[in-house]
Amino acid sequence: MRLLEEKILKYGKVYPGNILKVDSFLNHQVDMALMGQLAQEIYNNFKDCAVTKVLTIEASGIPLAGATAQFFNVPMIFAKKASAKNMSANFYSAKVYSFTHGNYYEIKVCKDYLTKDDTVLIVDDFLANGSALESLMDIVNQAGAKVAGAGIAIEKGFQKGGDELRAKGIKIVSLAIIDEMSAEKGITFRSPEAC
Amino acid sequence: MRLLEEKILKYGKVYPGNILKVDSFLNHQVDMALMGQLAQEIYNNFKDCAVTKVLTIEASGIPLAGATAQFFNVPMIFAKKASAKNMSANFYSAKVYSFTHGNYYEIKVCKDYLTKDDTVLIVDDFLANGSALESLMDIVNQAGAKVAGAGIAIEKGFQKGGDELRAKGIKIVSLAIIDEMSAEKGITFRSPEAC
Repeated sequence: MRLLEEKILKYGKVYPGNILKVDSFLNHQVDMALMGQLAQEIYNNFKDCAVTKVLTIEASGIPLAGATAQFFNVPMIFAKKASAKNMSANFYSAKVYSFTHGNYYEIKVCKDYLTKDDTVLIVDDFLANGSALESLMDIVNQAGAKVAGAGIAIEKGFQKGGDELRAKGIKIVSLAIIDEMSAEKGITFRSPEAC
Repeated sequence: MRLLEEKILKYGKVYPGNILKVDSFLNHQVDMALMGQLAQEIYNNFKDCAVTKVLTIEASGIPLAGATAQFFNVPMIFAKKASAKNMSANFYSAKVYSFTHGNYYEIKVCKDYLTKDDTVLIVDDFLANGSALESLMDIVNQAGAKVAGAGIAIEKGFQKGGDELRAKGIKIVSLAIIDEMSAEKGITFRSPEAC
């Protein structure tokens, strides 16, 4: 999506360790008008999928997931991060590996809010190795619900999470896919034809 | 606001320790259509205040803050929770006391996103003792920005945070104010005339 690519080129900052800082518009200060436009694009891609819930992880997935849920007119659920001690029996849970912090954390979703009758669209701000997305899919599967697919703002295409999940038949719509990036050479996006 | 009060009466659950569980529509599964209606009401109350930023704390304040920022057509910023170790010099920070967990945590906002030219509307899902709100106001003050006031979904009026801040001249608009609640007696809302 050209609009998001332009935002990334204009405001994004690349740091060593494959870090892309976009906290001026995506995940600290959030451009809600842009979220509306990204959400519209995700909606256009999944509007025929009979989506009943939008699911994300706290915290930075929430603005886009909320805007997307508005288009579908369905509830948005954000999985909560919690230590294992804090888990009650009434939650689905899964582990997510954080490459940023080098550890696992637990996410949980109350069993009341996902059932076998749900068709779930997963939304997140980033997709890199795919660990968070696989854990959210795991939770949807635990509920016996269907995964409609995933709508992502920025995919780090050079980390293979997205492509591996596509190879498994999961519909993943990423609004900007970065195939290469470095502080020296800048950012190269995947062309729409290759998506 | 009658609509929110009805939602609370219908779906809220009161537990010992002054806990009101509203995670079926406000802070785990989120009714985004309702968020739009609450945001409209907050907008109506602050639309003449020249608001330039909406500020909240991750994670459960984000859905309402995002929806509110859409009405104002301004950016939404969510303060991040972080351990003190993680703080860089480029952040404003403040401590928040969590009555739920009985400890202090640090919140931070990047200095790039709040300046002396900003007029900030603070939005959160809950107001009880006021610790989170005071810390957000502290951060706005550190930036030299103005506080327009606060828009809150549910205020626990029997915990005096809201009334103490009103007594200091802060404009606080809470869409439902609970004056009494218990598992036995249910929930009593403050009448609009008394707000």
